[in-house]
Amino acid sequence: MSIPVFYEPNPIASPFLSEEESIHAHRVLRLKAGDPIFILNGKGQKFEAKIDQSTSKKTSFHLVNEIENSVMPAYAIHLWIAPTKQMERMEWMVEKCAEFGIQSIGFFHSRYSERKEIKTHRLEKIVISALKQSKNLFLPTIYPMVSFKELVGQLGNKEDEQKLFAYISNPPSSSLSKSIHLNRAYHILIGPEGDFSSEESEALISTDWTPFSLGKSILRTETAGLAATHAIHLLHEN
Amino acid sequence: MSIPVFYEPNPIASPFLSEEESIHAHRVLRLKAGDPIFILNGKGQKFEAKIDQSTSKKTSFHLVNEIENSVMPAYAIHLWIAPTKQMERMEWMVEKCAEFGIQSIGFFHSRYSERKEIKTHRLEKIVISALKQSKNLFLPTIYPMVSFKELVGQLGNKEDEQKLFAYISNPPSSSLSKSIHLNRAYHILIGPEGDFSSEESEALISTDWTPFSLGKSILRTETAGLAATHAIHLLHEN
Repeated sequence: MSIPVFYEPNPIASPFLSEEESIHAHRVLRLKAGDPIFILNGKGQKFEAKIDQSTSKKTSFHLVNEIENSVMPAYAIHLWIAPTKQMERMEWMVEKCAEFGIQSIGFFHSRYSERKEIKTHRLEKIVISALKQSKNLFLPTIYPMVSFKELVGQLGNKEDEQKLFAYISNPPSSSLSKSIHLNRAYHILIGPEGDFSSEESEALISTDWTPFSLGKSILRTETAGLAATHAIHLLHEN
Repeated sequence: MSIPVFYEPNPIASPFLSEEESIHAHRVLRLKAGDPIFILNGKGQKFEAKIDQSTSKKTSFHLVNEIENSVMPAYAIHLWIAPTKQMERMEWMVEKCAEFGIQSIGFFHSRYSERKEIKTHRLEKIVISALKQSKNLFLPTIYPMVSFKELVGQLGNKEDEQKLFAYISNPPSSSLSKSIHLNRAYHILIGPEGDFSSEESEALISTDWTPFSLGKSILRTETAGLAATHAIHLLHEN
């Protein structure tokens, strides 16, 4: 059996698994004192560890050694998306973006939004399981819902950042491959199925957001979020 | 309200909507004689039409004119995948591949497959709704399950085709961007979560399948199918 992987953000300061992880370790995997495990801190480090004590409430371990310590990639993807009515569409998009690797996923509501509020707890569990499964070492951050106004207001114009929004227009905007400069932090904005209002599009352009196209097909919101994330990774492939 | 879109493979020979489409037209959209509709034949043509008679069993229409007639793109993607245990993962992958555009999706079972049989009816409904929603004009073909042996046996080596399989190896295989020649018909093979057996990988290499890598992250089967399809589209983007 392969060595099970757990997530603990501060394994050095607090060598204990969360209750959720403990239940999995104790009840499902039936781990005992001395069993080897891997710990991911979601900040680039992977440790080899051994169980000290396992109960379904609390599992303690000690670190044996650090086996991976990777630095952040030179680029970062921050996805800002207007969530779909069906929450499961957001859930799988979050899972897939976490598999590809993403810095953060945040949600906003705008004029034509189908959903004005969102529960992030389940999404946080999804990114943790995707972290373990994908062998990525950085846990994506999930941000709660904000309004379009708040979002656009809070993101300034930094030298090393690029702000881009998916825009269906005629003639179409340039593709991401033509729009992005490599090795930046990208803020990718994906509007609701009903698209941005013309006021919103104008507000974006006037605050230096670059429109981009995802190609000829009309993609669903969640597919657009996934496609943009994947495209940026491919553009940085060497 | 925007004009509703329907799928009918032979609208000229048989100007009737299927029972399923008729129920949607009659009960949901409550279309009446004279109402305008669009018809997609899934073979590159889009027609403007008008309802003649609408019942929940059968809706007849007459074509007003052909408004789109596009030729197949110069490249084609045929995805062959070992289905996951959870059918919903295949369902959404099929939906997403159909949104991006794909020639066909077929299924196979191999040594470490989690699923040896698959019902394709639901998947056929999914590609039809994706066709309508994505504004693509070509309906993907869904092929039933075959064995790994049958699949590899039935695909020869044609001049204008390329056979590639996702392979996790150390050192990693080349990415798709380095492996494909543009404007071919691509047969993309994605193995089960348990991967191909060493015998299967050897069989593939000995029958001129090219291994490729989808990057550092370990992707789930359905994510790999989606990523390969999307990557090929991006490589043909102009």
